[in-house]
Amino acid sequence: MQKSRTTGRDMSAQDAVAVLDRLRTRAPRVHCITNAVAQNFTANALLAIGAVPSMTLAAEEIGAFVARAQGLLVNLGTLDRERRDATAIAVQSAAAHHVPWVLDPVFVDRSELRAAYARDLIGQGPRALRINRAEFAALSGGEPDSLAISTYARGRNLVVGLSGETDLVADGERLVSIANGHPLMAKVTAMGCAASAIVAACLGVEDDAFRATAAALTIVGVAGEMASETARGPGSFAVAILDALHNLDGPRLMSHAKVN
Amino acid sequence: MQKSRTTGRDMSAQDAVAVLDRLRTRAPRVHCITNAVAQNFTANALLAIGAVPSMTLAAEEIGAFVARAQGLLVNLGTLDRERRDATAIAVQSAAAHHVPWVLDPVFVDRSELRAAYARDLIGQGPRALRINRAEFAALSGGEPDSLAISTYARGRNLVVGLSGETDLVADGERLVSIANGHPLMAKVTAMGCAASAIVAACLGVEDDAFRATAAALTIVGVAGEMASETARGPGSFAVAILDALHNLDGPRLMSHAKVN
Amino acid sequence: MQKSRTTGRDMSAQDAVAVLDRLRTRAPRVHCITNAVAQNFTANALLAIGAVPSMTLAAEEIGAFVARAQGLLVNLGTLDRERRDATAIAVQSAAAHHVPWVLDPVFVDRSELRAAYARDLIGQGPRALRINRAEFAALSGGEPDSLAISTYARGRNLVVGLSGETDLVADGERLVSIANGHPLMAKVTAMGCAASAIVAACLGVEDDAFRATAAALTIVGVAGEMASETARGPGSFAVAILDALHNLDGPRLMSHAKVN
Repeated sequence: MQKSRTTGRDMSAQDAVAVLDRLRTRAPRVHCITNAVAQNFTANALLAIGAVPSMTLAAEEIGAFVARAQGLLVNLGTLDRERRDATAIAVQSAAAHHVPWVLDPVFVDRSELRAAYARDLIGQGPRALRINRAEFAALSGGEPDSLAISTYARGRNLVVGLSGETDLVADGERLVSIANGHPLMAKVTAMGCAASAIVAACLGVEDDAFRATAAALTIVGVAGEMASETARGPGSFAVAILDALHNLDGPRLMSHAKVN
Repeated sequence: MQKSRTTGRDMSAQDAVAVLDRLRTRAPRVHCITNAVAQNFTANALLAIGAVPSMTLAAEEIGAFVARAQGLLVNLGTLDRERRDATAIAVQSAAAHHVPWVLDPVFVDRSELRAAYARDLIGQGPRALRINRAEFAALSGGEPDSLAISTYARGRNLVVGLSGETDLVADGERLVSIANGHPLMAKVTAMGCAASAIVAACLGVEDDAFRATAAALTIVGVAGEMASETARGPGSFAVAILDALHNLDGPRLMSHAKVN
Repeated sequence: MQKSRTTGRDMSAQDAVAVLDRLRTRAPRVHCITNAVAQNFTANALLAIGAVPSMTLAAEEIGAFVARAQGLLVNLGTLDRERRDATAIAVQSAAAHHVPWVLDPVFVDRSELRAAYARDLIGQGPRALRINRAEFAALSGGEPDSLAISTYARGRNLVVGLSGETDLVADGERLVSIANGHPLMAKVTAMGCAASAIVAACLGVEDDAFRATAAALTIVGVAGEMASETARGPGSFAVAILDALHNLDGPRLMSHAKVN
């Protein structure tokens, strides 16, 4: 595993800038299994950051789409039969073609069925798990703190990206906290799903999943802060964060990132 | 049934303010069965007004989501098998757990199949029916006027919220007209569905379904007027009404409501 | 077939203005088979230009919706069983009731299954094919240039609307290029689908499918330029183009159209 370039830290703002630059130059294809609530905003967030989204769920073709993608998002937003079938095929195709994927176990705190399904998927090799505090508590049975996510990550050989007022990213050896973001992010549906999709995009251009996940959450958090400068509420915030993802550049990311 | 607090009226602006305050403090969970066209905007409208949306349609889990919700929306926007199965389970769960629900019988004027299905659902105990004039005419076979909706509401033991240039709300004993709103509301898809979802949110914090429905339509109408102040067309209007739902407070609602 | 009114050209800006006027006065109903990513934006684009969208996919009712529509869009954005069944019924209903339809063969360059399905649909009588360069190359096996699309259109008795930096429209006898539009259009998901839906709306008010297709692409391109005047990125661009479609009038269309 690569070490971070800055002394005394597992991740630096420069690392996030490097990932952002690669998103823009490589335009990774990201296939998304997500719910209808989130599809449009997620696709637009991916386009804004420089990635190329696809969203088909059809069993006949999803394997081919995943095979040609550089990253995959599996979001449990709607747990219907069609999406579970699509997920089974997609995860298999991702493994066969070495496409990294991220799991977003939405609402596992609301339904034991979802939690069981999420645990099963975690056994199938996601590179990253993007999750909020209530969901992590439901899934792991423990407190959503640094130690717990590090232990969880180490045990399952994945990266945990825990969102909250301060985001935490852990892979079992390394840990970083990201103190960016804005409260209006919680008032826009699919914001978390879009963040997870950007994790998938970053996994497509950065082999180190810890760094990719931390870069993604830093990018989204800084874009949220930029959006808050002009937003007059959650409607204009959702619009402004797409503009911010598009307009975000290295110097701005560098100067605004609060990565520790 | 409670009587309105203001003399000579069945509903006052103060009643709407009281409901708005409770939306903000209680953050009711609202489960929505709606079509993919409407899901994102509806979820964002609920978040903006202070409610917590969920949208899953999966037969395996929708009963559990409804059981934990404070309000349920059933919207007929897409009449597929999945949604009809979900609706049957959701309505049963709502009855078992005393969760109030609102029916939005979209496009019953376009398809006799939908009208028959809507009539069947109306027999299963919705607390409110939010409907436009063409849909009411198709469903009831009569004119969409005060007398007809009062008679219809009384006969079916529900509240009718009839949207139009002036909204009318009736429960068979009481009647109120709400002269808020803006023509651009008709140029944004899912605006009616979002209004119905806000009715469901209000039902979750106000036991009197008449007052809840009237409060919801007043809130949406006033938010529409606020949005029109900055909107430059239907695109920016859809954004601005989400901001307005978020920013709406008691004094503004009080001074703008045209409730009679 | 009607001849264009301006000398030496197959299509003029005046033709587009005439189609726009008819959209506003006739408010054509447009039924759309499209994916969940695109449904909301497509519906809002149709409302903004003056048309009336419907989107149901249910096998039991889609035939009735198409029968009462003036135009139909078939978009291959998600190739699931439900949409293929819906498409079979819709295309049959369109033929029976003389409802013109447009095919948008999304992502045929990504999946041979889609390409085969699209070819089958092209044999069933669409009046227009709206397609980008990569998709046309995949479908036809040839270069996406004027000659190729003219030959393709003539052989299949339809109009090809090829989008790109400059759009080209051909019916085998006539050809027009439209040099409107803006790069941000490629950064908003469902922009192409919305354009195709507006082609369907124009087919509903203009019998000459060549002129209808060219008018639609001119309207969308000019609206895109208007949107770019205020947009600060893809988020605000998507909002602004809906405003622009709503605010576009004859004089503005006339003065901005770059039709040759």
